[in-house]
Amino acid sequence: MTAEEQRLDSLNQAQALISAAQRPLLITHIDPDGDAIGSLLGLGWALVRLGQSPVLYCRDGVPPRYDFLPGADRVVTTPHGSTDLVIAVDCADIGRLGLSADDLSRLNDRPSINLDHHVTNTGFASVNIVDTEAVASAEVVLQIVDALGVPLDATIATCLLCGIVTDTLGFRTANVTPRVLEQAARLMRAGASLAEINEQALNRRPFSGLCMWAAGLKTLRREDSIVWAHLTRAARAECGPVQGAETGLVSFLLSAQEAEVAALFTERDDGTVDVSLRAKPGRDVSAVAMALGGGGHPLAAGCTLPGPLDEAEARVLGLLRAHLREQAEGGRYHRR
Amino acid sequence: MTAEEQRLDSLNQAQALISAAQRPLLITHIDPDGDAIGSLLGLGWALVRLGQSPVLYCRDGVPPRYDFLPGADRVVTTPHGSTDLVIAVDCADIGRLGLSADDLSRLNDRPSINLDHHVTNTGFASVNIVDTEAVASAEVVLQIVDALGVPLDATIATCLLCGIVTDTLGFRTANVTPRVLEQAARLMRAGASLAEINEQALNRRPFSGLCMWAAGLKTLRREDSIVWAHLTRAARAECGPVQGAETGLVSFLLSAQEAEVAALFTERDDGTVDVSLRAKPGRDVSAVAMALGGGGHPLAAGCTLPGPLDEAEARVLGLLRAHLREQAEGGRYHRR
Repeated sequence: MTAEEQRLDSLNQAQALISAAQRPLLITHIDPDGDAIGSLLGLGWALVRLGQSPVLYCRDGVPPRYDFLPGADRVVTTPHGSTDLVIAVDCADIGRLGLSADDLSRLNDRPSINLDHHVTNTGFASVNIVDTEAVASAEVVLQIVDALGVPLDATIATCLLCGIVTDTLGFRTANVTPRVLEQAARLMRAGASLAEINEQALNRRPFSGLCMWAAGLKTLRREDSIVWAHLTRAARAECGPVQGAETGLVSFLLSAQEAEVAALFTERDDGTVDVSLRAKPGRDVSAVAMALGGGGHPLAAGCTLPGPLDEAEARVLGLLRAHLREQAEGGRYHRR
Repeated sequence: MTAEEQRLDSLNQAQALISAAQRPLLITHIDPDGDAIGSLLGLGWALVRLGQSPVLYCRDGVPPRYDFLPGADRVVTTPHGSTDLVIAVDCADIGRLGLSADDLSRLNDRPSINLDHHVTNTGFASVNIVDTEAVASAEVVLQIVDALGVPLDATIATCLLCGIVTDTLGFRTANVTPRVLEQAARLMRAGASLAEINEQALNRRPFSGLCMWAAGLKTLRREDSIVWAHLTRAARAECGPVQGAETGLVSFLLSAQEAEVAALFTERDDGTVDVSLRAKPGRDVSAVAMALGGGGHPLAAGCTLPGPLDEAEARVLGLLRAHLREQAEGGRYHRR
């Protein structure tokens, strides 16, 4: 079978399993993002249109940022009741389902479908549709919705467009193809509001988040190609609690043309220091994070260090300097 | 004539003028942004494909951020030589052309075309194609390129996609329709790299730009739904010259959930104050800008005021407060 034939075959099998179900259990991953929630809800609404009564489960619930999505209030945090089909969306492996050992064994004999786009997907279900070229699991769900013959409406389209928009950071990731823009246009024509999704899911932070950026940027520093800043406990307390403000800030630090790597040091209430590291393509900050007991990807990694803040900073900066020097020497050697 | 018939009629007239020209002078506005430069270059390349020798003029030259665009090095800062047709792109009025009185009178008897999307366009040319529904002048230029029968290639497409991407802040403004995404997909299929445009034009700034954000955010203020900040001459001098740093900053101010409108006040070297205004959908800051001798769109407008900074701030804040109060009262009346 060619890859395309295999894809169609899997779609057919998934369609048959779904058509035979009455009360499927839809699961998305722990610590969910916009694609996890959007894909879960989009598929949920499609099954409702088919007359089914799906249960939508996410162990950690729906983050407030995605409250605006239709059906967000129907997501449960306990996989209650009986079910005749398990469908995982955006889950790379069984651990990401957030199910207890009891629930896992209870569901073990049910047929299962795995809809995902992660290259690390373990193929844990009876039917696995893992499209690693999709920018979001929402794209994979859209394939299923089409295969099921459910007409797109504004409700389904809003959920799926949220998945595409958030996983591509608003069409900014390098994997956005013309097809992605065309699918987004199709979802908009079906009634999804790109402006609302941008506004709710991407382009909105509490004023206290701006205050946090101001506090962090007040400590902005650069040494050659390292850009860094920190947030003290006092500054965080002054601004008030903000979820995820740091994520945007460290990416902003990296946006300096001169930067090869960026670091943000956040002093926690217990005095420990969260370290967020980012790198431009070609660099690798995961080695530095791992050397300090953390982890991550080459371009985005992190670790937690004991305080005080200035000592944690000095440790990380020392390793970053050494890392950049090594890479520069490797580069010189390579060019000889 | 219907609006569509008028549009086609103007396109025909513009096409006839362009076909009869040999050495058109293309002008874009002073203090150019990505749409100004992208539209200028995209149209320039299309005319080159037709065998013409256009002169591309922008008084303030090409900001480094747009250096990556093909042909950026051909833009001149003096409108030298003879010309048989003047084409203004992205210029709302004659003042924005940046021409001296001498040059203006020299060019006065040439036929002229005005390609733009600003609602405040004064229609100053012999043929005016002002599509206020276009998200960027690049969209208007694309209409002309199609009307001229020039096939899209990667060079033209890159310039025009840069215009669309920068004027919509990466498809984030409220006026992005499915058609805009489809046009962007079409430009990508013609060879434009969305990833490169994002990286070069949106996601990169000199370190001095980060320093400017830090300086601006240090003055961050909020009063109800108005968020504002300023950049003093001293702060700007300390950071070093950064073109366009303010654009991103005022949008960031508006990203506060609590904000309905945002303002950034930038003190120039001569003591005058540039005012950038932004509004959430449903609000309109263009009226405030126009009342102060400026202009723009409902959601993005600006003006220049005499200093000192604090007096300029007080004037604008007074008008913004009055405007928000009026709208609130209008809203109450409407709901009765």
